[in-house]
Amino acid sequence: MSAPLKFKQLGLIGCGLMGASFALALQKHGLVDKVKGFSPSARTRERALQLGVIHQAATSAEQAAEGCDIVLLAVPVSRTAECLQAITPALSPDCLLMDVGSTKTDVVAAAAAYLDERLPCFVPAHPIAGKAEAGVDHAEADLYQDRRAILTPLAQTGAVQLENAKQVWTAIGSHVSLMNPQDHDATFAAVSHVPHLLAFAAVNALSAQDQGAAFLKMAGPGFRDFSRIAASDPAVWRDILSANQAEVIKQTSLFRAALDDFEKAIQNHDLNHLQKLIEEASRVRSSWSLQTGLTGQTEDDD
Amino acid sequence: MSAPLKFKQLGLIGCGLMGASFALALQKHGLVDKVKGFSPSARTRERALQLGVIHQAATSAEQAAEGCDIVLLAVPVSRTAECLQAITPALSPDCLLMDVGSTKTDVVAAAAAYLDERLPCFVPAHPIAGKAEAGVDHAEADLYQDRRAILTPLAQTGAVQLENAKQVWTAIGSHVSLMNPQDHDATFAAVSHVPHLLAFAAVNALSAQDQGAAFLKMAGPGFRDFSRIAASDPAVWRDILSANQAEVIKQTSLFRAALDDFEKAIQNHDLNHLQKLIEEASRVRSSWSLQTGLTGQTEDDD
Repeated sequence: MSAPLKFKQLGLIGCGLMGASFALALQKHGLVDKVKGFSPSARTRERALQLGVIHQAATSAEQAAEGCDIVLLAVPVSRTAECLQAITPALSPDCLLMDVGSTKTDVVAAAAAYLDERLPCFVPAHPIAGKAEAGVDHAEADLYQDRRAILTPLAQTGAVQLENAKQVWTAIGSHVSLMNPQDHDATFAAVSHVPHLLAFAAVNALSAQDQGAAFLKMAGPGFRDFSRIAASDPAVWRDILSANQAEVIKQTSLFRAALDDFEKAIQNHDLNHLQKLIEEASRVRSSWSLQTGLTGQTEDDD
Repeated sequence: MSAPLKFKQLGLIGCGLMGASFALALQKHGLVDKVKGFSPSARTRERALQLGVIHQAATSAEQAAEGCDIVLLAVPVSRTAECLQAITPALSPDCLLMDVGSTKTDVVAAAAAYLDERLPCFVPAHPIAGKAEAGVDHAEADLYQDRRAILTPLAQTGAVQLENAKQVWTAIGSHVSLMNPQDHDATFAAVSHVPHLLAFAAVNALSAQDQGAAFLKMAGPGFRDFSRIAASDPAVWRDILSANQAEVIKQTSLFRAALDDFEKAIQNHDLNHLQKLIEEASRVRSSWSLQTGLTGQTEDDD
C-alpha cells in the first residue's frame, strides 16, 4: 500500500450540490487541508463559507485553481469549456484536475482544445450521484458514498493523476469504473439520458391535455416512480441532452422502433405477439438489479 | 348510520392475488361468514383452501356464484365476458356482483351483453392495488388498505348495490371514487397504461441492442424507478393494452408529439426551447403528489 492520500488544497470551481458535497466528503475523510472555492453567485460563496464547504472564497475560477494540488470543476456542462480555458494558466503542473459532468465526449474535446500542457492533469469524472434538491444548502459529505464514479481518462492523462483520482473517489465511498468517453456517452444516453427524456415527454404529453390535471389526480404509485426523474433540474438536463445529442437521438430512434412494435401488435389485435413483447421487457427488468452496493435512496439522480 | 354491512357468502371467481386478497380482507373485517371459490387451477383451489382464503372450493364459476349475496369476478380481463355469461343464470337477484378489472368500457359492454336481468347487481370496480408477485400465495388482507378503488356504475346499476359496493371497499380500507367507464379508461390510459407501455418499450429498446447487457449494468436509481413497471405481469398487461386500445393509441400519439418537440429542440440546438420543455415537465412533476392517503410502498402496480 502507498501512503494515504492527502491533498494540501482543493480548488473548487462551482459550489453547487455536486461540488460542495465533494468538498465536504474530502474534509470528512481527512483528504484535504484547505478548500478554496469560487462561485459566480456571491450568496453561494457566502453560504459555502458559512457551511464550512470552503475555507476561502476566490474571486474567479482562475484564482480558485491557483496553487492547488487538486481542482474540481463542478459547473454546468455548458460552462466547462470556458472554465477550462480560464483556469489553464493557473493550474499547477502536477495537480489532479477533475470534473463531474454527466457527459464526457464534449468535456474531453474541450480539455483537448484548452488544457495544452496541463492535459495530463485531467481525469474526466462522472459521479452517478445527486438528489432532488440542488444547491450548496443541500450539500452533504455522504453524497458519493456507495455510488458509482466513472472515470474516462484520455490517452494523455497522467498515470499518477489517474491513480490519485481512483483513490480519492474510493476514499469517499464511491465505486470506481473506467470507461472511454464514447462508451460512457453511449451508455448513459441509453440508461439515463433517454429515460429522462421519455419521462419529460410523458409528463408534458399529459399536462398539455385539457383533462391533464384531472388525469394526474388519479395517477398512482406506478406513475410516481416512472415519472420521478421528470422532476430533474431543467438547466442541467438541457445541457446533458444537448451535449450528448447524437447518442440521445440514436437511442430515441431505437425506442421509437420498439414502441412501433407494441403499437402494431395492439392495433392488429396480435395478442400473442403483444404478450411476447411484454414478456421480454418483464423478463429483462425482473432479472435486472442495481450493481455493487448501489442500493437505498430513491432520491438520487443519474 | 345503517346497520353494519355483513354478507353471508362471498362467491370468489378467480383466486389469484386480487381475488384472494379481497376474500382475506372481507374475512379480516368481519364482512362475510363464508367464502366459496373457484379457480381453473386445482393447485390454486387447494392453496386457497389451505390459506383460509376460501372455505369451500367450487367446481365451476357458476357453482361459485350460486347462492351468494356477494360475488367477485377476479379473472384476467380477457376472460370477463365468458365468465359473466357463465354465471348469469346462477346469480341471486339481489346479490352484489363486482369485478376488479383495470379497464372498464369493455367490462361494461360484456355486462350489458350477458347479464340480462342481473345487470342491476353489477358494480364494475377497479381497485388500484397490486404487487410485484402474483398468485394466491402472495395474497394479503391489507392489499386494498389505503388504496384507491374506482367504481364505474352503469345506468342500470341498483342503488343498493352501489351503496353496498362503496361500503365494502371503504370497510376494507380503500378510498372510493366514482367515474364513468369512458372517463376511467381515458384516465388510466394516460396515467397508467401508456406509462407501462413506454417502460416496456424502453426496456426492449435497450435489451435489443448488442451492448444492451453492458448498458444495463451501468443503469442507476433513475432507471430503476423509471422502469420498475416494466416488470409487470405480461398476460395482465397484454389484456389491458388490448382492451383499452383506442385510448392507449390516442395517448401514445400525444406522447409522440411531445417527444417530437424535444427532439426538434435538441437537433436544432434550441437550448431555450429545450429548457422550457424540461421546465414544464419538472414543474408539473414536482408539484404532483399521490392523493388521499395513497402513500408508502413502491411495489404496487396500478
